[in-house]
Amino acid sequence: MKQTISKPARERLIKLARLMELLENESCFVITSSEIQKKTGWTDATIRRDISFLETDCATPNGYDVSCLRSAIYRELGLDADEKRCCIVGLGKLGSALLEYSGFAGTLFKIVAGFDSSANRCETLAADFPLYPTSRMESVIKNENIEYAILTVPEKSAQQTASKLVQMGIKGIVNYTPAVLSVPEGVYVENISVLDALQKIAASQKNENL
Amino acid sequence: MKQTISKPARERLIKLARLMELLENESCFVITSSEIQKKTGWTDATIRRDISFLETDCATPNGYDVSCLRSAIYRELGLDADEKRCCIVGLGKLGSALLEYSGFAGTLFKIVAGFDSSANRCETLAADFPLYPTSRMESVIKNENIEYAILTVPEKSAQQTASKLVQMGIKGIVNYTPAVLSVPEGVYVENISVLDALQKIAASQKNENL
Repeated sequence: MKQTISKPARERLIKLARLMELLENESCFVITSSEIQKKTGWTDATIRRDISFLETDCATPNGYDVSCLRSAIYRELGLDADEKRCCIVGLGKLGSALLEYSGFAGTLFKIVAGFDSSANRCETLAADFPLYPTSRMESVIKNENIEYAILTVPEKSAQQTASKLVQMGIKGIVNYTPAVLSVPEGVYVENISVLDALQKIAASQKNENL
Repeated sequence: MKQTISKPARERLIKLARLMELLENESCFVITSSEIQKKTGWTDATIRRDISFLETDCATPNGYDVSCLRSAIYRELGLDADEKRCCIVGLGKLGSALLEYSGFAGTLFKIVAGFDSSANRCETLAADFPLYPTSRMESVIKNENIEYAILTVPEKSAQQTASKLVQMGIKGIVNYTPAVLSVPEGVYVENISVLDALQKIAASQKNENL
């Protein structure tokens, strides 16, 4: 039977795949376990166990084959699957900064729409994809088969907007607001507010010092 | 002996404290375990175990005392400690969007400086704290006792900048870039790139469907 991979292991594998991409860009095609250890801080045992989940032999006499490892991780985690269509909801300072983010090239994620409550802002901002007033959100999400939303609305409207997005069929939300979102089972939320991140760092530090 | 709290439990407690803050703002002073369950999706057993780490009795006949829970979590995780002084490194679109972020009021985090390689950009942008060219980073970090950095430089200079920040005494980095940062033990990194977050969602979804 196929084992499921724990959340921390999945997160390490995602990080490992990104590392492999960077190495490929630098024309480095083989990496040893101890080099991975140095770059990530993970123990040798952790690295070997994570890689064992891939059930693919990427070992060469000189270390792991970088592109073999990257594609095995992508395959295992479903990150080589069909394109995932995404939208940005809320085009304030942060949302509009994301309009120009170029890091999606070569990934399976594609931003296909942006939404804002101000029709005027949608007309003024420039993006490589269309921007719509919030009133058109439902029809655009359906017609464009949008699965994931990047939520950059003000904190106070975050839950209400998230609930609407879920009703419209959104299956994953990247939550840039510090709001705690309540969503039904089968919908995934990743919280990436800067306050959350700082609190996690402070709590890790405190825990270490006990 | 004092137990250490696992990373997932710490992250849930941070989320729980945020939920308590929101409830206080809405003048709601007591919450039952089943209401917490509804808002977070965690099981009753998880909630009770997490709260048991606090070693504080916040129970009332009608549920948990909201402000008791919030302060117990903050105390336990060291989030009621001395002010943590932070800086923003890289004032491009994303960094400058963060200049106006108002979510730090009432938290222990205080942004006291921003840095950018362009002296011109530092002069043009407006913020409630001073902005400096990168050449002044070392002296400002030392003189201002800055402990944490929010990293919003381009991905290709992320590692180099992170290494410099660590040398200058930075103990925690919120990494907005998709780069995999290698830092020495005792320095904490939280990765909050949008690509990472989308990949985590896609991998969770795949895992669920196995």
